[in-house]
Amino acid sequence: MNAPFPEKPRIAIVGSGALGCYYGARLAKAGNDVHFLVHSGRAAIMARGIRVKTPTERIHLKKVQAYATSAEIGACDLVIIALKATANDKLAKLLPPLMGPNTLVLTLQNGLGVEEPVAEVVGGEHVLGAICFVGCTRTAPGVIQCSFPGLMMIGEFGRPAQARTRDVAKLFERAGVKCEAQDNLEELRWKKLVWNVPFNGLAIAAGGITTDVILADEGLRTLARRLMEELLEAAAKVGHVIPRPFMDLQFERTAKLGRYSPSSLIDFREGRPIELEEIWGEPVRRAKTVGAPVPRLEMLYWLIKRLLAARKTTVKPR
Amino acid sequence: MNAPFPEKPRIAIVGSGALGCYYGARLAKAGNDVHFLVHSGRAAIMARGIRVKTPTERIHLKKVQAYATSAEIGACDLVIIALKATANDKLAKLLPPLMGPNTLVLTLQNGLGVEEPVAEVVGGEHVLGAICFVGCTRTAPGVIQCSFPGLMMIGEFGRPAQARTRDVAKLFERAGVKCEAQDNLEELRWKKLVWNVPFNGLAIAAGGITTDVILADEGLRTLARRLMEELLEAAAKVGHVIPRPFMDLQFERTAKLGRYSPSSLIDFREGRPIELEEIWGEPVRRAKTVGAPVPRLEMLYWLIKRLLAARKTTVKPR
Repeated sequence: MNAPFPEKPRIAIVGSGALGCYYGARLAKAGNDVHFLVHSGRAAIMARGIRVKTPTERIHLKKVQAYATSAEIGACDLVIIALKATANDKLAKLLPPLMGPNTLVLTLQNGLGVEEPVAEVVGGEHVLGAICFVGCTRTAPGVIQCSFPGLMMIGEFGRPAQARTRDVAKLFERAGVKCEAQDNLEELRWKKLVWNVPFNGLAIAAGGITTDVILADEGLRTLARRLMEELLEAAAKVGHVIPRPFMDLQFERTAKLGRYSPSSLIDFREGRPIELEEIWGEPVRRAKTVGAPVPRLEMLYWLIKRLLAARKTTVKPR
Repeated sequence: MNAPFPEKPRIAIVGSGALGCYYGARLAKAGNDVHFLVHSGRAAIMARGIRVKTPTERIHLKKVQAYATSAEIGACDLVIIALKATANDKLAKLLPPLMGPNTLVLTLQNGLGVEEPVAEVVGGEHVLGAICFVGCTRTAPGVIQCSFPGLMMIGEFGRPAQARTRDVAKLFERAGVKCEAQDNLEELRWKKLVWNVPFNGLAIAAGGITTDVILADEGLRTLARRLMEELLEAAAKVGHVIPRPFMDLQFERTAKLGRYSPSSLIDFREGRPIELEEIWGEPVRRAKTVGAPVPRLEMLYWLIKRLLAARKTTVKPR
């Protein structure tokens, strides 16, 4: 598993939502051999390609190598998982045909506990994870609006960055994606939760509100901070010390977003699955194993779980 | 203030919703001199009287002494406050004309901190409070459906029951209302919160659900118990020891209610005011003054407060 990462790797993209199309199109445009596993909208993507619009660029990948099954793709050097975590029960079927002895599997999923289900299928030594700070929306099959190209941070599952981690980061850099290899993926995931847990969560639990409303409401603003404090204490107990001013930074950052609808609220409203377990459930469970008190986080988890169960809207396929 | 309570007292009923009409009609039918202060629907009440339907009785009070102002009523021996606590800002205007040197003022309001605003206006030594376990709905001005006549418990504000407390209880008993004089009104109020806080609260905060859904949802059921535990700890710290099996009793009682919509949920849905401060806000504040941790109760308070603020429905007058 320490074989050199090839200069022009064979790449599989599993999932053709906003992130899969965005990163896949960039990697293909940079001259890589990219194969897309597409569940819905394959005909449209094969006919019209993938179109990406960013604030500064328009990318049109005309010829897309799109497939219905992983067996048609076969073994790759790099497999990028761009499915929602809520579809992870499909990994056991989707991944094995894509694996060779040195294949790296990079999951782009949000939240905690997203590398583990991949590791169960392919073995932990193959697994990398990325945190994507990016604003992308799929408006139609293969049509991606990217409002904020942002930054990707890549790390190894359960160990510090390796030579191969930096090679994968360079691959993205060459494709026009700001990307850094990081030593502590798990800590980065906890840090991302410090924003996602309160703002995605309260936006849903307080009746479908934008982040400016949370900041303007004295109770909810205080509650957002208490939730952050619970996360910091739990993170510290599992070994990740996040400095307290990091919380202030989240509030400052959020103030600049204005009338912002967090992605989970949009998904909730449109009847799509949301990462309930990865963003709220898993931190609760990890906090409990180390005896960190998370009463508000747990309450938020239970409330959102119930609101999701009651959601009338039918789940739309992506 | 220890003058004997008269055998046939002059009574004022402030507020003509379900409870005011129900108890007022019973007291008048028992031969008492009852004067109703009626804000809305006075013409209807004067024309058609008050009609009460219980599971076993039909009461029709044909001639109702109804008034638009307290000055027209004048001093009484007993003033019964049957307004919602959310209308308490009107007490400073409504009560003084009804007061004589020995007048007793009995508030029927729900929650904590409802005697204090009355005491501020008339002096604490005049104040009694009651907890009403009763199911009454006003279907039209002066028309009351009583599904459950239940029980009333009466106590003094800040001291044990006196001779006069028992006299008032007997007055209600003679009017066909099961009524007990109790020594510790404040403790009874905390005990009632043990049901009201979780079940009224989660019914609203979890998206508008009935109590059977709370019981059937593992997270919400656990959350209801955690909220009860927070209340028990806070109550103990302010001096009211509620035995832990009292919590189990609440769950058993609730299971028997079936698909029950708590009154606050009905009020919330119909756009009427709810006792946010008396049921959720005040116990939070009292817990904090004695250093009792109430993270979930406070979170519930903040969430309901926000949901109320966002409620689109116009407030209907009662």
